[in-house]
Amino acid sequence: MSDSLNRRKFLQATAVAGAASLWSPSLSAETLYEANVSDIGKSKWDLDSPALCVDLDKMEKNLKAVHTALKGTGVGVRPHVKTHKCPAIAKMQIAAGAVGVCAAKLSESEVMLVNGIQNVLMTGVNVTASKIKHAMELRKKYKGFIQAVDNMQNARDLQDAAKAAGIVADVVVDLDVIKRSGVRNGQPALELAQFVDKAPNLKFHGVLAYDGAVQHVEGFKARREQALKTFEPVVNSYELMKKAGLNTEIFSGGGTGTYDIMTEVPGFTDVQVGSYLFMDHQYMVIGGKNNEKEFDDFAPSLTVMATIINNSNEGKYVTDSGAKALTLNVPHGKIIGEPDFDYNAGSDEYGSVKIINPNKKYNVGDKFEVIVPHCDPVVNLYDFMYGIRNGKVEKILPILARGKSQ
Amino acid sequence: MSDSLNRRKFLQATAVAGAASLWSPSLSAETLYEANVSDIGKSKWDLDSPALCVDLDKMEKNLKAVHTALKGTGVGVRPHVKTHKCPAIAKMQIAAGAVGVCAAKLSESEVMLVNGIQNVLMTGVNVTASKIKHAMELRKKYKGFIQAVDNMQNARDLQDAAKAAGIVADVVVDLDVIKRSGVRNGQPALELAQFVDKAPNLKFHGVLAYDGAVQHVEGFKARREQALKTFEPVVNSYELMKKAGLNTEIFSGGGTGTYDIMTEVPGFTDVQVGSYLFMDHQYMVIGGKNNEKEFDDFAPSLTVMATIINNSNEGKYVTDSGAKALTLNVPHGKIIGEPDFDYNAGSDEYGSVKIINPNKKYNVGDKFEVIVPHCDPVVNLYDFMYGIRNGKVEKILPILARGKSQ
Repeated sequence: MSDSLNRRKFLQATAVAGAASLWSPSLSAETLYEANVSDIGKSKWDLDSPALCVDLDKMEKNLKAVHTALKGTGVGVRPHVKTHKCPAIAKMQIAAGAVGVCAAKLSESEVMLVNGIQNVLMTGVNVTASKIKHAMELRKKYKGFIQAVDNMQNARDLQDAAKAAGIVADVVVDLDVIKRSGVRNGQPALELAQFVDKAPNLKFHGVLAYDGAVQHVEGFKARREQALKTFEPVVNSYELMKKAGLNTEIFSGGGTGTYDIMTEVPGFTDVQVGSYLFMDHQYMVIGGKNNEKEFDDFAPSLTVMATIINNSNEGKYVTDSGAKALTLNVPHGKIIGEPDFDYNAGSDEYGSVKIINPNKKYNVGDKFEVIVPHCDPVVNLYDFMYGIRNGKVEKILPILARGKSQ
Repeated sequence: MSDSLNRRKFLQATAVAGAASLWSPSLSAETLYEANVSDIGKSKWDLDSPALCVDLDKMEKNLKAVHTALKGTGVGVRPHVKTHKCPAIAKMQIAAGAVGVCAAKLSESEVMLVNGIQNVLMTGVNVTASKIKHAMELRKKYKGFIQAVDNMQNARDLQDAAKAAGIVADVVVDLDVIKRSGVRNGQPALELAQFVDKAPNLKFHGVLAYDGAVQHVEGFKARREQALKTFEPVVNSYELMKKAGLNTEIFSGGGTGTYDIMTEVPGFTDVQVGSYLFMDHQYMVIGGKNNEKEFDDFAPSLTVMATIINNSNEGKYVTDSGAKALTLNVPHGKIIGEPDFDYNAGSDEYGSVKIINPNKKYNVGDKFEVIVPHCDPVVNLYDFMYGIRNGKVEKILPILARGKSQ
């Protein structure tokens, strides 16, 4: 294949709808990634670093594994795009059998909708007049956009805005799990759901509940116990609504750490897995159902290539990839092939690697491949990721919702 | 002024050169920021959050203050663009009297050069064949591009690449201060400088030394002592080179925490201040020469607007601005007007604010204005910042080198 053919194919494959967005960018793949197309075919070891890479074989395996594991349980998959922020990957998730996707924020939802993802459930709430108006405009254009609400005033505001937009907006109620977002369970939750159900310009679809604190509990048994206990008040709210005759077609929540636990929750419809695609060091250390030492249901597919730029100090290597490449999350990134090295990305521009039980000696210019500490915020630092197959760049995946935290 | 006039003026003001870059993007302001032009004229309190804002009056005051303070000391200002990543701001720094700018990485340097900044000193080293080749191509095109080197093999590689490119490349030697980057001081430093000086395709300009660990030492006296002590071996290297008859026209280093201390270093030519423009909570707490409690030589101009999305839990507010908006840096962000509140951005999508000694009650939808924990990595999360004057958006400042960590 000639370079120009590669380039043409790339531009066709990644062309995105250019509709204007309140927050911009209506990024065209042509503008942003043209220059990096010349990297297609290169070895990942030859990329200018820091370079965000996803191993496509591993990611595709993860993509299937979650569906295989949940087959026959009655629980579906509604992947959370806050992890990858990449419409091209969202399309793979839909093709693999996802019932739709979740998005954290309105601007993130918009990037997905504008780029051809039809069913987007926004898990965060919109509380300002500006965002609510914009959400209703989006719903008017994209029928598969579902919004969350977690307080009565907000439900009234959504009703008013939907009416003003001349639509019936699809709504789920977010239930409190970890005292962060969500309406109080029990009677307050039921009343909010009933209000939404009766509001002429809102349609109630069910509930949402995210047990963020449970996802990283170490040890499957402890995690299972905590997850099910934490969800008891949520299940109670769900059952009150069901008894009241409300539409409970959606009972969504959970994540990569509890995807195989939520199947035990009565009425639960779908898990909001995100990290399962990429994995990261934070998830690897929590332990899985079948492997207490390492959570290995999914393979770590996401890495950052980092280059050694200085080896003149005893006991350490300095790299070109610091907090702006890997974030400050802990546990630190994990170097493939050097399990005991400690990769400290605490400095903005530089990584500092403590040499412990080395398998070889490294020179300035050599590269480390680093499993990321926490995938979501690392992805949010890059404009694109390199899709790697057999060690070579197969394609470039634009992270079009990067920075879309509004 | 009509909206369309604003928009036209904005497009004229922010138009950037669209030359292709190895890492892309050749972002055109038109493509990226058109949609946000409609925010010009809005109150900062009405912006969709998280929104990165810079108070222009404060930033302009800071821009002047560093020059005023250093007037007559013989020490110049070579601001580090890793802090703002914004060519428009680099131009303001040059206009205010900077001798040029520093950039941390090659891709960051390129964005500055391509967008009209003539004198760029890259403080990091390029050690791979790909980056060295690209650096020489840049130097061929932009005469004011200066590169750093910190080991002999790298100097040989630069010489070979400069020769292959048919140029004489301008080089400074990076000296070790905190065992991160830099050649060992004394004889090794001298030998490296002499090698560069004799290399037919390299021109030696002097030295560079960054005392990163000293910048945030609390208390001016302690900071001054440590800074001067840490710099002793650096000064020794500089004097060896001077004695050897080498060109020592550049002796660059320091930062916002030591800008008023480096004036005591013999031979020192310019400070690489970055944070002075924006300030942040990390710098505010170190104390200044004239105010031990707060480092207030410069005013905190950079803030993130965050919206309260949930107030249903006692003792805290939940906002829409977490680690993807403010990073995990400590000390936490500081809410203007609520000095005792603790803003924890530890969660990716949500901020959690502990209510301590409140001055008022806040409702869902109200906004906090948050002084950022650490300016550099926060800026690196946003595609643009809002330039605010008297509380209103005056202009949009594209952060064109965002994510340029290569």
